[in-house]
Amino acid sequence: MREGDEIASILVRAIRETPAREIQDGDILVVAETAISTAEGRVVRLESVVPDRDAQRLAHRYGMDPALVQCILDESDEVVGGIPGFLLCMKHGTLLPNAGVDASNAPPGCVTPLPADPDASALRIKEVIELLTGVRVGVIVADSRTHAMRVGCSGVAIGCAGIPTVMDARGRTDLFGRPLMVTRLALADNLASAAEVVMGEADERTPAAVIRGLGIQVTDISGIESINAEECIFMGLLKQERKRQSSSSHRNDT
Amino acid sequence: MREGDEIASILVRAIRETPAREIQDGDILVVAETAISTAEGRVVRLESVVPDRDAQRLAHRYGMDPALVQCILDESDEVVGGIPGFLLCMKHGTLLPNAGVDASNAPPGCVTPLPADPDASALRIKEVIELLTGVRVGVIVADSRTHAMRVGCSGVAIGCAGIPTVMDARGRTDLFGRPLMVTRLALADNLASAAEVVMGEADERTPAAVIRGLGIQVTDISGIESINAEECIFMGLLKQERKRQSSSSHRNDT
Repeated sequence: MREGDEIASILVRAIRETPAREIQDGDILVVAETAISTAEGRVVRLESVVPDRDAQRLAHRYGMDPALVQCILDESDEVVGGIPGFLLCMKHGTLLPNAGVDASNAPPGCVTPLPADPDASALRIKEVIELLTGVRVGVIVADSRTHAMRVGCSGVAIGCAGIPTVMDARGRTDLFGRPLMVTRLALADNLASAAEVVMGEADERTPAAVIRGLGIQVTDISGIESINAEECIFMGLLKQERKRQSSSSHRNDT
Repeated sequence: MREGDEIASILVRAIRETPAREIQDGDILVVAETAISTAEGRVVRLESVVPDRDAQRLAHRYGMDPALVQCILDESDEVVGGIPGFLLCMKHGTLLPNAGVDASNAPPGCVTPLPADPDASALRIKEVIELLTGVRVGVIVADSRTHAMRVGCSGVAIGCAGIPTVMDARGRTDLFGRPLMVTRLALADNLASAAEVVMGEADERTPAAVIRGLGIQVTDISGIESINAEECIFMGLLKQERKRQSSSSHRNDT
């Protein structure tokens, strides 16, 4: 994948060389965010970046390259904290190590931030594929993330078009006829994870996967459902700690 | 699934009614933890639980049933914190809302804690299937979890036998020949997520899924790789906050 490449038509051609043969009605395509960022020209040469004082301070504290930290700050809505080598950032309502700025599979001396608007990227790929092939597809833009206390990365959907990202089972009942309270299925995240297994993360050169036969109705919807920090058990906890801390240092001051 | 059921033989019989037809060499079976807990008799009748003072205090603070909170405390190594309706717990080195104690798909008035030893459950199912069928399989015990700032649940492996839970790509190179720094693929979590899409979470009565054709070498290994809290960006951050807070309240005291 190179800057300016038209991903949709590359995918339509590439699939002919695979056992999937051709894109079919109802297929869900999972595309790696790095491939999209690269095609969209979202590549930053680190030596062209001038780190400001905040970036230098954070780089020093967490043992990171100041230019990389500056890229991360440019991409973040908020830096929540850090551990050596990583900043934990909020971006578009999601918690993101290093704000998704990634050096892996970027050209030498460069990093690739996430696509500027992953939902728009997903929708564009969907529309071009549908124009080229005449079939209806879903498209997921997938990133790969670590989760709390889990070893290794699993797939996460950061952009989506054509299928719902979350299937809501609230209002349905469990095996014993009892209403389910909180059961929502992270459909797009689960599909991104499934694709991760065949796409890999190193030099596999497989930036996309086709999911077939799920029977999910493809529509014109797009967008990722987001959550409020207060509804998130992890962020909710962190915010509680900070509140308690600030009220305790307030008591300190008085 | 009922207490005392032999899951492995039920699965071998049930698969004949599905398009997968019969269990084949190299198949990976994903089994829902609730089914295993139920078969293993890990069902707690809430009215038989006497909540202690800690349980009553936490239940009051987070608006929860004291008996449920007592079950959660009994299952937790540590309660990290809570938000209304949920306690965030550490258990066996993993961060677990409500310590995995689940009321969904449990008999009325009951909850099902996680299987006592999910790796042992996975290994036992694997061994019985191999005895019954003569083929080699991998078995994943899957739970379904929310992740930080994500909407909905995705699949997580809490027990595993026959395949590695994490594929290590460290030491390999990226597309540009650069060594990858932190890239480990959470294979078992990704497969649990893939299975979640076809198993569902409500009254689907599909407690297992078969993953075929991945070409992963099945061996005799078992066990889930765990992580230290310090290596986890989420827990690392929470621990930092607490440390800062306790040193600030220490200053308060002096």
